[in-house]
Amino acid sequence: MALSRLHTPCMEPKSLSSRPAAPLPSSASRVPRVQLSRRVLPCRVLCSVAPNQVESPGAQSTVADAPKKRECFGVFCTTYDLKAEEKTKSWKSLINIAVSGAAGMISNHLLFKLASGEVFGPDQPIALKLLGSERSFQALEGVAMELEDSLYPLLREVRIGMDPYEVFQDAEWALLIGAKPRGPGMERAALLDINGQIFAEQGRVLNAVASRNVKVIVVGNPCNTNALICLKNAPNIPAKNFHALTRLDENRAKCQLALKAGVFYDKVSNMTIWGNHSTTQVPDFLNAKINGLPVKEVITDTKWLEEEFTERVQKRGGVLIQKWGRSSAASTAVSIVDAIRSLVTPTPKGDWFSSGVYTNGNPYGIAEDIVFSMPCVSKGDGDYELAKDVIIDDFLRTRLKRTEAELLAEKRCVAHLTGEGNAYCDLPEDTMLPGEQ
Amino acid sequence: MALSRLHTPCMEPKSLSSRPAAPLPSSASRVPRVQLSRRVLPCRVLCSVAPNQVESPGAQSTVADAPKKRECFGVFCTTYDLKAEEKTKSWKSLINIAVSGAAGMISNHLLFKLASGEVFGPDQPIALKLLGSERSFQALEGVAMELEDSLYPLLREVRIGMDPYEVFQDAEWALLIGAKPRGPGMERAALLDINGQIFAEQGRVLNAVASRNVKVIVVGNPCNTNALICLKNAPNIPAKNFHALTRLDENRAKCQLALKAGVFYDKVSNMTIWGNHSTTQVPDFLNAKINGLPVKEVITDTKWLEEEFTERVQKRGGVLIQKWGRSSAASTAVSIVDAIRSLVTPTPKGDWFSSGVYTNGNPYGIAEDIVFSMPCVSKGDGDYELAKDVIIDDFLRTRLKRTEAELLAEKRCVAHLTGEGNAYCDLPEDTMLPGEQ
Repeated sequence: MALSRLHTPCMEPKSLSSRPAAPLPSSASRVPRVQLSRRVLPCRVLCSVAPNQVESPGAQSTVADAPKKRECFGVFCTTYDLKAEEKTKSWKSLINIAVSGAAGMISNHLLFKLASGEVFGPDQPIALKLLGSERSFQALEGVAMELEDSLYPLLREVRIGMDPYEVFQDAEWALLIGAKPRGPGMERAALLDINGQIFAEQGRVLNAVASRNVKVIVVGNPCNTNALICLKNAPNIPAKNFHALTRLDENRAKCQLALKAGVFYDKVSNMTIWGNHSTTQVPDFLNAKINGLPVKEVITDTKWLEEEFTERVQKRGGVLIQKWGRSSAASTAVSIVDAIRSLVTPTPKGDWFSSGVYTNGNPYGIAEDIVFSMPCVSKGDGDYELAKDVIIDDFLRTRLKRTEAELLAEKRCVAHLTGEGNAYCDLPEDTMLPGEQ
Repeated sequence: MALSRLHTPCMEPKSLSSRPAAPLPSSASRVPRVQLSRRVLPCRVLCSVAPNQVESPGAQSTVADAPKKRECFGVFCTTYDLKAEEKTKSWKSLINIAVSGAAGMISNHLLFKLASGEVFGPDQPIALKLLGSERSFQALEGVAMELEDSLYPLLREVRIGMDPYEVFQDAEWALLIGAKPRGPGMERAALLDINGQIFAEQGRVLNAVASRNVKVIVVGNPCNTNALICLKNAPNIPAKNFHALTRLDENRAKCQLALKAGVFYDKVSNMTIWGNHSTTQVPDFLNAKINGLPVKEVITDTKWLEEEFTERVQKRGGVLIQKWGRSSAASTAVSIVDAIRSLVTPTPKGDWFSSGVYTNGNPYGIAEDIVFSMPCVSKGDGDYELAKDVIIDDFLRTRLKRTEAELLAEKRCVAHLTGEGNAYCDLPEDTMLPGEQ
C-alpha cells in the first residue's frame, strides 16, 4: 500500500525564469513574444502526481526532492502505476486536459463526461487540470470534491488552480470555456476587448507551457475571434490546432432539419455551419443530406429553408433560456464532447462535421487569416482536413460573404491583441446569439 | 422518408375507468386499493410513438386510428423501425424509463447520462418519460429541447407530462427524484407526511400502470421511508423491486477511506452503508476492504474510524453546499447511474454494493418490514440478493439498532400512508443530512 501523501507541502509557483523561452515567432503575423506580466499568485494550486510515477513505499518526500507536480487535490494525490495492474495495464498513457471556466455550469456537465470515459474511451485515463478565478475558487474545490465522490476509475489526476501557467502545463487538450459575460449596456467592441485580453494571455501561456501539439477548443464568446487572438499569441503551436465551437449550432441545425422532414435526427448528415458563431452564421441546407439525399430534394419548402431554418437554429438558445430560465449548459457540454470525439474518431465515410478553424489555403474562397467555421473530416488522429465535394451557389455565397465581413471587422477590432497594429472597430451591428454572451 | 407527424392532435388523458383494475392486495400489510382521486389534468402530455411501430408512408393519422401513444415531443415524434436498419437492428428492445422531478438539477445531469448510453450500454435504446409539475413544465420543455439538440442515437422517445398515469405507463424503471423540499421551520414529521403523500400516490400509479416488474429507485428524501410508502401502495409489484438511494453515501465513504489510507479509490471494496439515508446511517468499516484486506488492518487509527469517518461521510454534502453554493447534483446523478448499473451488470466476485431495500427475511437481524440499506449482490438481471459473509460486531450492532429505531419511528409516523392505521409520530431528533432536504 502506498503511503499517504495528503499533507505534502504546497509548492511555490515556478519562477518566470524557469520557463522555457519560446523561440521567436516564425510568421510575421504572429505576435512577438513580450515580457510576461503575470502576477505571482498565492500558492493555491492543488494537483496530483505525474502518471506512472511510483514511489518506494518508504520514501519521505521533501520540497527539495519531490517531483514538480507533487501538489494535489484530495484522493488524486495517491501514487499509482497503471502498468502494474492487470485491470489497467492495457490502458493508453494518461492525457492532460485543461479546462478554463471550470466552476461554471457548462464545465459542471463536461467534466463528468470527460471523467466517465464517454469522450476518450474506456482505456484512456485522464488528468483534469481546472482553471478558476479567485471568485470561483471555492466552487472549484466543490467540483473537485464531487469528482472525487464519483469514483471514476479513468480519472487519475485532478488539479485546480488560478494560475494558467500551472494549469496549462503539458496540456494536450485545452478547453477554453471561461469568458467574461457582457454586462448591461456593454458594447460588443468592449466585450471583444475584455475577452480578447483573456484569450491573448491564454494563448501566450499555452505557447509557453502546453504540449507542442495541444488541441485547443474555444467556447467562450465571441469564440471565433477569441480563437484567432489565442492562436496569434501562440506562434509555436500549429494554428490548425485551434478550434472555435460551432458544434452546438450544427447539432441544432440537424435537429431542425429532422423536425421539418419528420425523420429521426440520425438521418441528417453533412451539416455545415459556416462562418461566425453569431447571428451571421450560415447553417448550410445546400450541402446537408437527409437519408443520403440533398435536403432540398426532401424538404421542398424553399421559403422555410431560406428564411425560417436559419432563424430557428439561431433563436434556439434564446427560446431555451425562456423555457429553462438559464442557458443551455447541458447541450453545450454535449456539443463539446461531440467536437472532441469528431477529432479523435474517424469521420464516417462521406460525412463531415463543422468547426471554426483557421483559414489558411481553404478551397471555398473564404478570406484567409481568420477563424471561420467550415466542414471538416478527421482520420481520428486529432487533426482534420477540409471537406471536399462542397457546392457553393449564389445564395450561399452571399451569406458566406456577410459572415466573412463580420469576422474581418471583428479582427480589425482586436488588431492590438493579434500583433497587427492599432485596432479600428467598425462593427456593423450587434450579432451576439441570444444566451451566448 | 416518413411523413411529418409534428402536428398530431393532443390526446385526452385516458378515463379512470379504462385503467385495469388492480387485484386485491395479497398481504394484509399492503394498502387496500382505494378510489383514485386523481385530478384530470389539462391535456399537456407530449410524447412520442411506440417503438418499432412503422407507418406506411402515406397513412393519415386521426385521433380515432392513431395509436394511444401518438402524442409526442418534437423530433421524438418521428416513426422508426430499429430492426429495419443495419446500424440498429442488433439493438435490444427499447426500455421505458420514467423520471420524476425531471426539471431539477439532479435530473439535468442524469437524463443526459441515461441518453448517452453510459448506463444501459451502447445497444440499449431508451425512452425517457419525464414527470414535472405545473410550475416546472416550461423548464421540462427546455430539458426536452436540450435532449433533442444532443442528437443521442439511443434516445428514441421523450415524453413530458404532469400526469403520473401517463408518464409511468409501462415504465420498466422509475427514478423517483422529485420531492418537496423542507420549508423554513418545517418539522421533519410534516416533511414525512407531505412527501409521503407524493410517494403514496406514485406507488398507486405504478401499481396501476407500470410494468409488472418495474424497478423503482427512490431518491427524493426522506428516501427510505418514501420507498416504504411507495411499495406499500403498490401491492402488485414485488416489494424487492423498490430501492432507496444510499449509493452517494457509499461512494463518499469509499473516497474517505481511500483518502485516509492514501490509496486510489478503486482499491476500496465491500463498502456497506447500513440503515437510513440520514445522520443515523452506518458506513461500515468492519466489512469494507482496501486492496482486499480488512480496512482495520490498513487503517489502524481506530479513533478515526469510529468517530471521524462516519462524520466525514455525513458532512460531505454540507461541505459541498458551502463550497459550491448548491447541493451536489452531479455526484448524486453519478450515484444513481452507479445504482442502476449495479443492478444491470454482474457484481464483481467477492464485492457488493449498498442499496436501501425492503427487509423481508434478512440474515443480519434487522427488523422486518422497513426499507433498510444493506449489502447486495446482483447477477446483472435487475434483481439482487443480500450479501453473505458479513460480520457484525458489538460496535456495529449498536449503531445498526439506532438507525433501525429511527426507521421504525419514521414508519409509525406514516402509518396512515402505508395502510397500517393511525400515525403516531415520536421522532427522537432531526437527522436529515445537510443538503438532502
